[in-house]
Amino acid sequence: MKYPGMLLVGALAFSAAASVFADGHASDKALAAAVTARQSHMQLYSFNLATLGAMAKGEVAYDASAAQGAADNLVAVATLNQQGYWLPGTDSDSMENTRALPAIWGADSNAQKIGMDLAEAAASMQAVAGSDLASLQGAMRAVGEACSACHEDYRKPRN
Amino acid sequence: MKYPGMLLVGALAFSAAASVFADGHASDKALAAAVTARQSHMQLYSFNLATLGAMAKGEVAYDASAAQGAADNLVAVATLNQQGYWLPGTDSDSMENTRALPAIWGADSNAQKIGMDLAEAAASMQAVAGSDLASLQGAMRAVGEACSACHEDYRKPRN
Repeated sequence: MKYPGMLLVGALAFSAAASVFADGHASDKALAAAVTARQSHMQLYSFNLATLGAMAKGEVAYDASAAQGAADNLVAVATLNQQGYWLPGTDSDSMENTRALPAIWGADSNAQKIGMDLAEAAASMQAVAGSDLASLQGAMRAVGEACSACHEDYRKPRN
Repeated sequence: MKYPGMLLVGALAFSAAASVFADGHASDKALAAAVTARQSHMQLYSFNLATLGAMAKGEVAYDASAAQGAADNLVAVATLNQQGYWLPGTDSDSMENTRALPAIWGADSNAQKIGMDLAEAAASMQAVAGSDLASLQGAMRAVGEACSACHEDYRKPRN
């Protein structure tokens, strides 16, 4: 398959091996660890997109090496296996310190599809980020759209 | 080169493109972002090593798929380009909320070498994690040694 790391099919019902009792429920510690892990994952998106975004917006000079490095990282993070992150019971109704809406786990959730869109957009960015600024700018739209699509539908607004 | 993501050579003097003033110093916001990013990076090590470690210690049953997923993630994180994280001025003497000792930036720093050791140990883990428990257990030592080597020399103890 195209994105072997994006094995989210069935992942929302999957629990990290290290964290599950015999009856199948995860410990509070495991739930907290899952939230921390996925927030760390998002931080690494943010960090690398800041580099690319600042160049795209002309806030800093285009730097082919830095752009390529950030795009490479974006692909690596987007293709991490996220099976362990999205444990049932880690939504914003069930836990504090997370803005992950219950809809992520809904039967008609589009979150996995959006994750695959992001991986694809990151791969397109990776292919051109080190070439020139115009190509980088052209590749930003699809990345930003994937980010926004997930945040709009599946992230609880700040109060 | 063997670990293209481990481009730490010269990286300690490198600053993220998005965060540098004309005179070469990074903004406070950029310094804080760098610390957040590397702590997120460490959290992803921790999360995936928890899965592998629990199996290695027999706390949970060996699960080839989960072990392979965690090992794949470990490699992906260990080979991220870390150039943007280790900005001068982000050591534990200069900032709160970090335990990164100034020695990381010292002339005789071994931190980069240890990072490459970790990437190599992760690759060895990836090669066997999905095979059987004994192989996974055998691959844990080198991973743990790399973690410990860096933490002992370059991470400030908790008070």
